[in-house]
Amino acid sequence: MTAAYDRLKARFARIATLGEAQAMLHWDASAMMPPGGAAARGEQLATLAGLSHDLLTAPEVAGDLADAAAQGEWDAANLELMRRAHARATALPTALVEAMARANSACETIWREAKARSDFALVRPALEEVVRLQREMAQALSAALGLSPYDALMEGYQRGVTAAEVEPVFAAYEAFLAEALPRAEAIQSRRPAPRPLPGPFPVAAQRALCRRMSERVGLDYAHARLDESLHPFCGGTPSDVRITTFYAEEDVAKALMGVLHETGHAQYERGLPEAWARQPVGEAAGMAAHESQSLIVEMQACRSDAFLSFLGRELLAAFGGDPAPYATENLAGLWRRVSRGFIRVDADELTYPAHVILRFRLERAMIGGRLEVADLPGAWNEGLRALLGIAPPDDARGCLQDIHWHDGAFGYFPSYTLGAMAAAQLMQAARREVPGLDEALALGEMLPLMGWLREKVHAQGSRLGFQDLLRHATGKSLDPGDFMAHLRARYLEG
Amino acid sequence: MTAAYDRLKARFARIATLGEAQAMLHWDASAMMPPGGAAARGEQLATLAGLSHDLLTAPEVAGDLADAAAQGEWDAANLELMRRAHARATALPTALVEAMARANSACETIWREAKARSDFALVRPALEEVVRLQREMAQALSAALGLSPYDALMEGYQRGVTAAEVEPVFAAYEAFLAEALPRAEAIQSRRPAPRPLPGPFPVAAQRALCRRMSERVGLDYAHARLDESLHPFCGGTPSDVRITTFYAEEDVAKALMGVLHETGHAQYERGLPEAWARQPVGEAAGMAAHESQSLIVEMQACRSDAFLSFLGRELLAAFGGDPAPYATENLAGLWRRVSRGFIRVDADELTYPAHVILRFRLERAMIGGRLEVADLPGAWNEGLRALLGIAPPDDARGCLQDIHWHDGAFGYFPSYTLGAMAAAQLMQAARREVPGLDEALALGEMLPLMGWLREKVHAQGSRLGFQDLLRHATGKSLDPGDFMAHLRARYLEG
Repeated sequence: MTAAYDRLKARFARIATLGEAQAMLHWDASAMMPPGGAAARGEQLATLAGLSHDLLTAPEVAGDLADAAAQGEWDAANLELMRRAHARATALPTALVEAMARANSACETIWREAKARSDFALVRPALEEVVRLQREMAQALSAALGLSPYDALMEGYQRGVTAAEVEPVFAAYEAFLAEALPRAEAIQSRRPAPRPLPGPFPVAAQRALCRRMSERVGLDYAHARLDESLHPFCGGTPSDVRITTFYAEEDVAKALMGVLHETGHAQYERGLPEAWARQPVGEAAGMAAHESQSLIVEMQACRSDAFLSFLGRELLAAFGGDPAPYATENLAGLWRRVSRGFIRVDADELTYPAHVILRFRLERAMIGGRLEVADLPGAWNEGLRALLGIAPPDDARGCLQDIHWHDGAFGYFPSYTLGAMAAAQLMQAARREVPGLDEALALGEMLPLMGWLREKVHAQGSRLGFQDLLRHATGKSLDPGDFMAHLRARYLEG
Repeated sequence: MTAAYDRLKARFARIATLGEAQAMLHWDASAMMPPGGAAARGEQLATLAGLSHDLLTAPEVAGDLADAAAQGEWDAANLELMRRAHARATALPTALVEAMARANSACETIWREAKARSDFALVRPALEEVVRLQREMAQALSAALGLSPYDALMEGYQRGVTAAEVEPVFAAYEAFLAEALPRAEAIQSRRPAPRPLPGPFPVAAQRALCRRMSERVGLDYAHARLDESLHPFCGGTPSDVRITTFYAEEDVAKALMGVLHETGHAQYERGLPEAWARQPVGEAAGMAAHESQSLIVEMQACRSDAFLSFLGRELLAAFGGDPAPYATENLAGLWRRVSRGFIRVDADELTYPAHVILRFRLERAMIGGRLEVADLPGAWNEGLRALLGIAPPDDARGCLQDIHWHDGAFGYFPSYTLGAMAAAQLMQAARREVPGLDEALALGEMLPLMGWLREKVHAQGSRLGFQDLLRHATGKSLDPGDFMAHLRARYLEG
């Protein structure tokens, strides 16, 4: 029945519009809100989330989903996404949802203290409760969705890829890294140390440069803002994207590379299919897909020799002084430096996957009941040593470093590396299909790449899951070989 | 039944929280949003308004209101306000509400063009439709609320005062003005013309000064922001107020006096009773009450000789240069200039009420069916001549100047002058009750006045309607004599 489907479309449009309001309030909370507004903002977001949940789980939805019929590929995909969203929302008893909200919030608060003191024992009971409830949630979703418990969690962040597909990809990367990392370090150590950029970099000039560079990537400020927040992010809505960054006078790379990264996210939102706006199939395809779009801009395009040559000229024009540190090779030495470290968010693109592989395996084992919270610090340290040959000196730089688990986010971590690998795979396909792509990058021209991404990725919305999207855009499912080839070319030839 | 009342409190808290989300989205639309976000923002606000209306008019509300019992004065007032809100929301058929939304939106669009061309005939049909629907709404509300049709509209903006109370007050002012205006002009013309402030006033320095002065009034930026928008306003929520202004390099008074005005509004919101947050009785008491709080700060306190002497020193410190123009008498000459003009928003405090009296009488006659839209330009010009002795050279400077009627706002205009009069009445009471109030103002100390207002006005929420609030705070209902005495002292002694 198309009448049932039409009712569902109207309902999901209303839910999406509430989601837009929530997105704007989240952005405001991070970029604008005075501290005294936090309590009221929490209430506002909770009320909107509650109304969304009510709309999604209203008694008449199940009947409409049973009756609905959709013609054509996009409508069929849309209806299937509605069914998944409804199944996920109704699979969990209200008592469990509320218990998780309380447990996550309590654990996150304690975690801040535990991390500051590097005291895992402090957060352990709270984290055990979080994991207990996550296991319960995973079981409930698993039964409703026909996925393994861990896959059911992962689907909440990225649809269309399973842990069984991820593990061999990650294992191949682990093997690659064991050989590639020492070689990259050796090559790096033979080169002269890069000269630091002189600085300081006045914030007003950084802001203007960041805006100009994001416009180079294609961001249209009639539909966007660039502001500041402690933790940079891309928020807002497809017709009104809000990106943020953080300026430090002594370091221009942090803000600039951050803005280019967030611009990749923003351009994905901007390029979503307007005809499907506010429908599930019109949304971005998931967190790994989203990360592929930020990383193809930041890591693949903007840290390429070609773009760095352009960027060096722009930086020199913006800040003046000695031109030597702005030479391409020097910028490459500064901004593509490989280093074994303890901290994921500080990692380079070669070692970053090791941090993700570690977390993926640990969280999968925790959800599967094969690893208990009490054993987490030991397993973490052992795992990092196996992957990178180093062990954290304390838990603050070990299993306490990330907020994710302590806030109840299990199944998210793989997205970072799936995104990085997908970015390399997409870049290789774009290079094949778009003539003169690198020549354009050397002139600071991103539009050939972005036009290709718009058609192959952005305009696809959520029609396809992760693997299908890659097959559609690149002719094959996730293949870590393209990422390794990219890393070989960048770090192992010298 | 307290259970029914408790359910209502939970429901109205939810409605108020949705209202907070709408307030933040409105602020963002005016102060932050890129132009391309406008269409989506309209959808977001419409969706939230629709959900609020659904919550207010849900079938179970009538039963709860019938069953509810409230103990104590505040709860009784709260329940009565719930009843009024429900009665207002259910009195209007959906078809009428939708027809008004369409007619108002269409008329407002045409009005912009008509005003630009000064062509009343262009907007006349659209305005006739707006007036026809406003009459219908007034009739429907009148029947449901037991008020006259015009009073039913006015109650939507300001509860607790009737047109029958307003008319004699306005008539008294008209008589006062006929005598006072020529005298004020004669006194002013005998004085030397004030010297303009030198300028330019760099925007960054204006911004810092405006913020500092708003802090003088007591605004706490842990719960507030000051930003920029084309039309200054006070928005946000009680724990997170957002005021805006507009900076022009050549004119510091515009931004500064605007910020002081909006700070008066903001402090009202900040001082509302926290124990009644998100309940109808915890809201501000209406638009006239609100305007009394902005005007007591801007007009009564900040344009007083005492505060101008402080402000002159602050301006000199901020902008430097020749100190002479910053002398109190010169600032008074600049910022308290009386002049007969056509435009309400540019009017001084002596002639401003004439603009409001004109509009009050015309809109009351239109709603009462005694004046047709076709006769509006003639009635306007005749009315302004009777009040101020001048007639607009065209309708753009006449009946087309304000957006209000063209956007379906009838019954709002009296609030401006009721607020101005209430501000004078409150100031006189504060002077009586707070020792050293003017001595404090001369030192830039606003807190004695603001402390008194917090107790007498802000903390009262909506417990009392306009007249009762004045009786509570000043011992008498609206008395134009205090406003006239203020104007005599300021403009007729010299």
